[in-house]
Amino acid sequence: MSRDSSAEASTASWNYSPRRAPRWNRKQGVVSFSGTMPTLRLLPFSILLGVVGILCVGLTGFWCYHWRGGFGWDGTARMFNWHPVFMVMGMVVLYGAAALVYRLPLSRRGSKLPWKLLHAALALVAFLLAVLGLVAVFSYHKARTIANMYSLHSWVGLTAVVLFSCQWLMGFSTFLLPWAPTWLRGLYKPIHVFFGCAIFMLAIAASISGINEKLFFSLNNATVLYSSLPPEAWFANTLGLLIVVLGWMVLWALSKPAWKHPELDSPEAQQPLPEEDK
Amino acid sequence: MSRDSSAEASTASWNYSPRRAPRWNRKQGVVSFSGTMPTLRLLPFSILLGVVGILCVGLTGFWCYHWRGGFGWDGTARMFNWHPVFMVMGMVVLYGAAALVYRLPLSRRGSKLPWKLLHAALALVAFLLAVLGLVAVFSYHKARTIANMYSLHSWVGLTAVVLFSCQWLMGFSTFLLPWAPTWLRGLYKPIHVFFGCAIFMLAIAASISGINEKLFFSLNNATVLYSSLPPEAWFANTLGLLIVVLGWMVLWALSKPAWKHPELDSPEAQQPLPEEDK
Repeated sequence: MSRDSSAEASTASWNYSPRRAPRWNRKQGVVSFSGTMPTLRLLPFSILLGVVGILCVGLTGFWCYHWRGGFGWDGTARMFNWHPVFMVMGMVVLYGAAALVYRLPLSRRGSKLPWKLLHAALALVAFLLAVLGLVAVFSYHKARTIANMYSLHSWVGLTAVVLFSCQWLMGFSTFLLPWAPTWLRGLYKPIHVFFGCAIFMLAIAASISGINEKLFFSLNNATVLYSSLPPEAWFANTLGLLIVVLGWMVLWALSKPAWKHPELDSPEAQQPLPEEDK
Repeated sequence: MSRDSSAEASTASWNYSPRRAPRWNRKQGVVSFSGTMPTLRLLPFSILLGVVGILCVGLTGFWCYHWRGGFGWDGTARMFNWHPVFMVMGMVVLYGAAALVYRLPLSRRGSKLPWKLLHAALALVAFLLAVLGLVAVFSYHKARTIANMYSLHSWVGLTAVVLFSCQWLMGFSTFLLPWAPTWLRGLYKPIHVFFGCAIFMLAIAASISGINEKLFFSLNNATVLYSSLPPEAWFANTLGLLIVVLGWMVLWALSKPAWKHPELDSPEAQQPLPEEDK
């Protein structure tokens, strides 16, 4: 935590950590300030976020590898094990990365198109991983004749994936295809931003309920009960809390005025984009 | 959804529904606009939110009354049944109401003190209900010699309640007691607002995982399996989704620029409060 002056903040795009929220001034090319926000540098925060994201995926993989028999694509429990890995990788970590693309200072310069493409590409990969995660669990259920879609976890999780697919299609057709009029972009933008956060919350809730449910299923014999808190339970419970921490970090970065794209709530958002930005 | 003019919006404090986000102008006593946001009237939204909140508590109570044996304070499952009711009432519905106090247009006029007191009082009642909810489940576990605090649901839920107690104490000592200096209030305010949302998210995740866990515990005999989706499962799964919808509505109202307190991110937040506002 540092309290740099605005002069220092304006010269270091990756490191600005203003005491107040900066607003980008295109004409002057500097960061000026209004509002208040605790200081935190973007680069160390991004590195920490990356480490937590990799840890979330890595620990999910280790849990399934070490305690649940590893991985396969054969209809057995080894196939099910791809479900938590793909879901955490797609709906939590890559989804979070996609949401934060516009927080990179570089995204504020020049054409928006490369950043829109990166945002859409990361979200698409996240969605495809989620689909693979669904294939893994449905195939496992089919091979073992287990019922599908009965638990609240499955309802919440599938709602998150279906809404995410709508979100991607709406975002693609409104912001990337050239046909949407400017008024529609302006109208839909805050809805897209809100549902981005709302679906992410849903994904976190699905992750927590899913880990909880899996532990009740797996740790259910007399020698290894979930209620006796064996090492696997400690490990997976901690993983659940780490996923919550990742969710908080993403929402913190999204809500921090100093890191917001200056056009998001400004009258400029209403104005037509230059041709190269559409 | 309507698109009133700013003139109309400025005259109806409960009904303004500007096409752009309004900023309250104390000197002129009118609402002016910058930024964009889809229109939605605050009064119908508040009524809908109230109805959804009452439904969440009512349906939780009906679930426990109709399918789980009703209520008691005697160490049996009837005592446990207070746990979901108190938790949804406290950590979701009243917590959400407390968070939205500053979105009422009336809170923008005159002294802040009554609104601070209402915010703190609602949060305190929410916290006390959460404590009663914890007493209900711990007493039931003790009477039945069931282990405490092993599931991820319990870890997430207790983390939410403990953080909520810290949040309340920090808020009380910083914003209600007269000793905190202005710079500390300015520094802590965005942290308080962020953790308000973060703990609320945690409470939603705890609710979803808790309902899921309770249904696996309760619907576990050959005639009434959770996987056969009996009426109770449909009912409680729908309740879970309704709690998610309530969470989204609260976060939507919190994030909507048109309904935000104008001082939150403004330079005025840095200025000393008038004596009567402290």
